[in-house]
Amino acid sequence: MTQVGVVTDREIPRNMRVGVLYEPKVFRVEDREVPEPGPNEVLVKVGSVGICGSDVHYYEHGRIANHVVRAPMILGHEAGGRIVSVGPGVEPARLGERVAIEPGVPCRRCHQCKEGRYNLCAEMRFFATPPVDGAFAEYVTIAADFAHPVPDSMSDDAAGLMEPLSVALWACGRVHVGPGSRVLISGAGPIGLLNLQVARALGATEVVLSDVSPERLEAAVRYGAQQVLDARTESTADLDPEFDSFIECSGAEEAVRQGIHAVRAGGRITLVGMGADDFALPVGVIQIREMTVMGSCRYANTYPTGIALAARGLVDLDSMVSARFGLEDAEEALNRSGNPNVLKLIVRPGDMP
Amino acid sequence: MTQVGVVTDREIPRNMRVGVLYEPKVFRVEDREVPEPGPNEVLVKVGSVGICGSDVHYYEHGRIANHVVRAPMILGHEAGGRIVSVGPGVEPARLGERVAIEPGVPCRRCHQCKEGRYNLCAEMRFFATPPVDGAFAEYVTIAADFAHPVPDSMSDDAAGLMEPLSVALWACGRVHVGPGSRVLISGAGPIGLLNLQVARALGATEVVLSDVSPERLEAAVRYGAQQVLDARTESTADLDPEFDSFIECSGAEEAVRQGIHAVRAGGRITLVGMGADDFALPVGVIQIREMTVMGSCRYANTYPTGIALAARGLVDLDSMVSARFGLEDAEEALNRSGNPNVLKLIVRPGDMP
Amino acid sequence: MTQVGVVTDREIPRNMRVGVLYEPKVFRVEDREVPEPGPNEVLVKVGSVGICGSDVHYYEHGRIANHVVRAPMILGHEAGGRIVSVGPGVEPARLGERVAIEPGVPCRRCHQCKEGRYNLCAEMRFFATPPVDGAFAEYVTIAADFAHPVPDSMSDDAAGLMEPLSVALWACGRVHVGPGSRVLISGAGPIGLLNLQVARALGATEVVLSDVSPERLEAAVRYGAQQVLDARTESTADLDPEFDSFIECSGAEEAVRQGIHAVRAGGRITLVGMGADDFALPVGVIQIREMTVMGSCRYANTYPTGIALAARGLVDLDSMVSARFGLEDAEEALNRSGNPNVLKLIVRPGDMP
Amino acid sequence: MTQVGVVTDREIPRNMRVGVLYEPKVFRVEDREVPEPGPNEVLVKVGSVGICGSDVHYYEHGRIANHVVRAPMILGHEAGGRIVSVGPGVEPARLGERVAIEPGVPCRRCHQCKEGRYNLCAEMRFFATPPVDGAFAEYVTIAADFAHPVPDSMSDDAAGLMEPLSVALWACGRVHVGPGSRVLISGAGPIGLLNLQVARALGATEVVLSDVSPERLEAAVRYGAQQVLDARTESTADLDPEFDSFIECSGAEEAVRQGIHAVRAGGRITLVGMGADDFALPVGVIQIREMTVMGSCRYANTYPTGIALAARGLVDLDSMVSARFGLEDAEEALNRSGNPNVLKLIVRPGDMP
Repeated sequence: MTQVGVVTDREIPRNMRVGVLYEPKVFRVEDREVPEPGPNEVLVKVGSVGICGSDVHYYEHGRIANHVVRAPMILGHEAGGRIVSVGPGVEPARLGERVAIEPGVPCRRCHQCKEGRYNLCAEMRFFATPPVDGAFAEYVTIAADFAHPVPDSMSDDAAGLMEPLSVALWACGRVHVGPGSRVLISGAGPIGLLNLQVARALGATEVVLSDVSPERLEAAVRYGAQQVLDARTESTADLDPEFDSFIECSGAEEAVRQGIHAVRAGGRITLVGMGADDFALPVGVIQIREMTVMGSCRYANTYPTGIALAARGLVDLDSMVSARFGLEDAEEALNRSGNPNVLKLIVRPGDMP
Repeated sequence: MTQVGVVTDREIPRNMRVGVLYEPKVFRVEDREVPEPGPNEVLVKVGSVGICGSDVHYYEHGRIANHVVRAPMILGHEAGGRIVSVGPGVEPARLGERVAIEPGVPCRRCHQCKEGRYNLCAEMRFFATPPVDGAFAEYVTIAADFAHPVPDSMSDDAAGLMEPLSVALWACGRVHVGPGSRVLISGAGPIGLLNLQVARALGATEVVLSDVSPERLEAAVRYGAQQVLDARTESTADLDPEFDSFIECSGAEEAVRQGIHAVRAGGRITLVGMGADDFALPVGVIQIREMTVMGSCRYANTYPTGIALAARGLVDLDSMVSARFGLEDAEEALNRSGNPNVLKLIVRPGDMP
Repeated sequence: MTQVGVVTDREIPRNMRVGVLYEPKVFRVEDREVPEPGPNEVLVKVGSVGICGSDVHYYEHGRIANHVVRAPMILGHEAGGRIVSVGPGVEPARLGERVAIEPGVPCRRCHQCKEGRYNLCAEMRFFATPPVDGAFAEYVTIAADFAHPVPDSMSDDAAGLMEPLSVALWACGRVHVGPGSRVLISGAGPIGLLNLQVARALGATEVVLSDVSPERLEAAVRYGAQQVLDARTESTADLDPEFDSFIECSGAEEAVRQGIHAVRAGGRITLVGMGADDFALPVGVIQIREMTVMGSCRYANTYPTGIALAARGLVDLDSMVSARFGLEDAEEALNRSGNPNVLKLIVRPGDMP
Repeated sequence: MTQVGVVTDREIPRNMRVGVLYEPKVFRVEDREVPEPGPNEVLVKVGSVGICGSDVHYYEHGRIANHVVRAPMILGHEAGGRIVSVGPGVEPARLGERVAIEPGVPCRRCHQCKEGRYNLCAEMRFFATPPVDGAFAEYVTIAADFAHPVPDSMSDDAAGLMEPLSVALWACGRVHVGPGSRVLISGAGPIGLLNLQVARALGATEVVLSDVSPERLEAAVRYGAQQVLDARTESTADLDPEFDSFIECSGAEEAVRQGIHAVRAGGRITLVGMGADDFALPVGVIQIREMTVMGSCRYANTYPTGIALAARGLVDLDSMVSARFGLEDAEEALNRSGNPNVLKLIVRPGDMP
C-alpha cells in the first residue's frame, strides 16, 4: 500500500544551509527553506556531494554551452544520503533508506523517454543545470524512483559517486566494452579513471590511458591500466591500430584526432569529454575503417548496475576521494578541484563548523 | 557431388577483349587470354557492367586515396552474366546459371571475415581496385559463392547493379532504416537514388533528398522522395531536426555538416560519399544529441537480399540505366558518366561492333 | 505553455452509453457518467472500436488466464476517435485532434518502463483487462501521450486498428523481419494477416501462411502471401527448413511444433497466439539449430510507426473491416466475431439507433 | 611472405600413438601415421586434451543424437599444444608457437559462415564428431587460423580448456550477461562452473547455481557463486523471478522447466545442456513474461577472448583439472570422468609409460 500524505521519520528543521552560485566566482552559503516532497517524491538528507568538472565550470564561467546561470543556482549533482520524508504515493517503508540520487528526472512521456533513452529527453530537469537547483544542500527532493537504494556497506561518498560511475557505464556501453576488449581512454581524470575501472569490471583485457599529467597517469596505473602514455610527448596515433574501443574523456581536439587513428577497422569511439563545438576529424579514416563515432550524453538506467558493481567490490569509489569539505568550505573545494593531484573532492553538507 | 576438374558447357574462346586503364586518360581495349577457373571458382561470361564513379575516378586520376594504378588494370566491378565453366569443387549443375557477381573476395580467415564483417578484410581482393583486374572483359573468374544466382526475370544489367544496390542496402542497415523511418539523403546520384529505393522498400515513410542538380532531384521525385531540396539555395540544416537517419552520398563537406543538424537526438548518420580526408564536423551537436556517425564501407552478405528485393519488384534497377555501350566504346561511357542527365551507364562486353 | 484546468471544445453530455460485461455471456448496454480527463489526460469521443479475440474470450469465458472479470467491465480496446476535452497539463490546441488510442498506460517508473519495455510493466493499466474498463463507450479518457494523432486521410476504423497492427509490428520486430526475409506465419486471422502486411512493408520477400480455414487462406493470398498451406492436410514441418522467421498466431500446439521445424539454423520464432500454458516443444531442434524462441507481449512505441505506415498506404486496414455495428448491437458482433468469413468487426459507439 | 612448401622445426616421427573408439566401450590405443599439414594448415604436437562429456557419451553409447560412430574414430577435442610443422601458405615464423586448438573448421563459404555464425555451418568438420578424428593423438593437423596463439604463461591444459571456456563465453553472450547481471545456472559440472567464471568476469553481480551433487555445489561456492541450491530438495522455481539470464547446463527437463519460472519478464534463457529431444515447456509464462529462449550451439570467434581472459587471470582453468593421464590410460580417464568428485580429467598424449 502506498500512502497519500507526507510521512517523515524525524524532526526535519524548517531551514537548511545551501551553496548557491550567483554569478561567475560569486558563490554564497545561505539559508533556504527545506522543501517538502511532492507526489511520488522523497526528501533526502544529503550526506555527500562530489564536485564535478561541470560545477567548477559553472563556478568559473557561469555557463556551459547554451546553459547559462541567469538566476542564483545551487550547485552539485553527485549526491548520496538518506530518505527522511516521503511524499504521497511512496511507500513509508522507504523512510530511513540510504540512497544514491540520480540527479536528472525526465518527462517520462516523450518518445525518447518511452523508448528507454530518457537521457535524451528534451524536458529533462537535471540538478545544477540552469535553472534547476542542485545538491549542495542539507536536503533535496527527488522522484522516488530516482533515489536508488544502496547497501549499508556503501559509504555516502560512494553513493554520490554513482553519478560519474554512471557516465562511465554508459560510455563503456556505447562502445560495447566486453570480455577481451582492448580499450583506449584519453584523459585520466575521474571520468577517465572510472571508465578504466568499469572497462576492467566488464572483462576488458587491455586498457591504455593517455593524459598530460604524470600524477593522473600514476593513478591510471594504480587502477590497473596495462599501459599509459604521456600525451605531452607521446601520440596515441603511434599505437598499433588495434583498439576495439576508444573512450575520449579529455575534450582535447588532438586527443580525439590521434585516438581515432589507434582504432581498428569496425571499432567504436565515443566522445565523452566536452571541448570545442566544431573541429576537424579524420573523416577518411572513419570511412575506410568503417568506424562508429558516437556522442555519449549522461546515462540511462545505470544506477542499479553501478550500485551492484560497487557493492561487489568490482569498482572502488572510496579510494578516488582526495579530500572532504563542509558546505561552508565548498568554494575552496571548487577552487582546488582542477588540481591534477586531486581526483575527487567531496562536499558534506551535514558537516557543520 | 562436387567434381574435381574444370567443366565447361560450350566452346570457350582462347582470347577475349578487355578494357584496360594504363594511366590517367589512357584506356585501351585489347586482347587477353580467357582465364580458367581455379578451385571453387567459376568462369562467367559477362553480360553487363555498370560504370561506377570509382571507375571514372581511376580513369581521370589514376588513383583513389592510397590505391594507385601502377600497372595496367582492367576497370569495372558492377557485373552480371552467365556461368560458362566451373572449377574443381563446384557443382557442374551451376553451368549456365545466370549470376550477379559480388566483386570482392575476402581472405575468409582473418577475424573480420570470421565475424561476418568481410567487407573489412585487409586482404580483400576487389575488382578494379589496384592491382586486381575488373570486369570490363568478356569473361571473368570469381569464387563460386560470390557468383549469386539470379532469376531469369532479372536482366543482366540489373544483375550487375546488385553491386551499387548492395552499397545502399549496407548503408540503410548501418543507420537502421526501418518501418516508419524518416531518412535524409544528400546526393541524388545513383547511390543516393538507390538508398532512396531501399529505404522505401524497408518501410521508411519519409525520405528527403538534396542535390545541386535539378535533373537528379527530378529523378528523386520519380523514385518516390517525399521532398527534395536544391542544395545550391536550400540548406538541410534548416529542416526540422527530426530525421532518424542521414545517409550522406555526395562527399561534400557542407552536405555532411548541414545534414547532421537535421538529425534528431539519438539519430544515426552514415558517410557513404568519399570526399576530403579531414574536415570539421559539428562535434558539439553530435555529443549533445548523442548521435552516431559511421563510416559505411562497401557491404557484406547483401547480394541475396538485393536479388530478392529486385525479383519481387521492391526496387527498380532497369529504369536507372541511361545508356548502353559496347566494350569498344567504354571510354566514351567513362567520359560521359559524370553528366547529371545520366544515371547509370552500362558496358556490355559481348556487344561487339 | 500547457494549461492548468480542463478545456472542452463543445457541449459534452453528462451521460453516455457503454457496453458492459457482467459475467460470461451477460453483456449489457447501459448508461455511465462521461468521465473527466485528469492531469495530462484527454477525453476522446470514440468513433470506432474493433473487436478482438480477447473481447470475445472474456465475453464467452469471463477470464483469460489469471485475468478474471470479477466486477462489471466495459469491453473493447481497439479504439480511434477525436479529442473533445483536455485535462490539466495538455495543450488546448489538441482539442479536435483525431487520434488512435493506445489502450495500455504503464506506470512510467519501474525498470521495465524506464528501459523502454513498458509493455512488460507490472502496473500496466490496459483497457478491457480486469479491472480496467475499455472503449465500448461513447467517451473514454486516456493519457495524452497515448492518444496518437492520425491524419485526416485515416478513418476512425483504421485508427482503432492501430492496436492489432501494433501487435504485428512488435512481433515482426521480435523476429527481425527485414529486407529479403522469408517469413512463416501460422494462423491467418486478423493478427496473422496484419503480420503478413507488416512483413511485406518491411521488405520481406517470401511470406507463407497456414490456417485451417480456406476463407482465411484466400484472404492471405489477397494480402500478398506467396504461398498458403491448409493446415488440415498440409504440415509446415514438410516445408524446406529455410524460413528466417516464424510468427505463430494461432495458439495451436501443432502449429507451434510444426512451424519450428521449418525454420533455418539461427532463425527466430515468436509465439503471439495464446494457447495452452504448458506443452511439448522440439527442444533438441531448437538447440542444434540454435534457434531463438520468444514470447511477444503486446507492443511498445509502435503507434507512430503504424500510423506512418498506414498513412503512406504501406498497410491497408480499412479492407479488413467485415462489418460495423452500433453499440446497441455489440453483443451480436461479439457472437459473430469468430466466424472464419469475418476478418474484423467494428463497433461504432456513436451510431445510435 | 608466406611460404609454399611444408616446413618443420624438428624431427617429426613417422608414426604416433592415438586413442581410437571402435564401438561402445571398445577403445584402443594404437599407431597411426603422423599426418602432414595441408595448405594453410599446421601440425600441432598435442600437449593436453581435456575429456568432455561428449567423449564419454560416444565411448559409452557410440552415438550422440544422429551422430553415429560407424568407423573407428579418434576421440578428444579440447586440445592445446605446440606447432611443429606448417603447411603451404603459413608463416614459417609460427613454428614453435604454443597454441589452443579450436577443433571445428567450417566451410567458410556458406551464408552462415559469411555472416559470422560459422558454428551453424552445415559443413563443419569438428574433432571427434563422426566421421572426423579428434585429438587423442600425439599430433594433429588444423587450419592455421584455428590454432590460436597462447602466451607462455598459459599451461597446455588451460590451452585445451579454451574449448569448454568457449562454450561458456558463447552461452553468456547469448543471454547478454553483463555488468550487474543476475544469472541462474543449472548444472555445476565443468560447463556450469565455466559459465559461472565467465559471468563473473563479465561483471555479473549475482550468480546462483543448482545441482544434485553436493561436491559440485561446493565447487560452485569456491568459484564465487553467491548462492547454491541442492536440486534434490530445492526448486529454482521457488526463487524470486528476478534473474536476467538463465543458463541451463544440466540437460534435465525439470531444471529447464523450473529455471524458466525464476526469470524476470524480458529475461533470456539458453539451453546448453543436451537432454531429451522433445519435452514440455511452460509456454504461457514464456509468452506473458516475453522471455527469449535460445539454443546455444558451440561457439564462434571466442578463442581470442577466452585466451585474453585467462591470460589476465580473469578465469582460472588450471584449478579445474582433477587428474592427468597418459594416452595409454585414456580409457580409465573416460570411465572416471562422470564422477561428481571430478571436474576435468586431462589426457596428455606425450606422457608415455
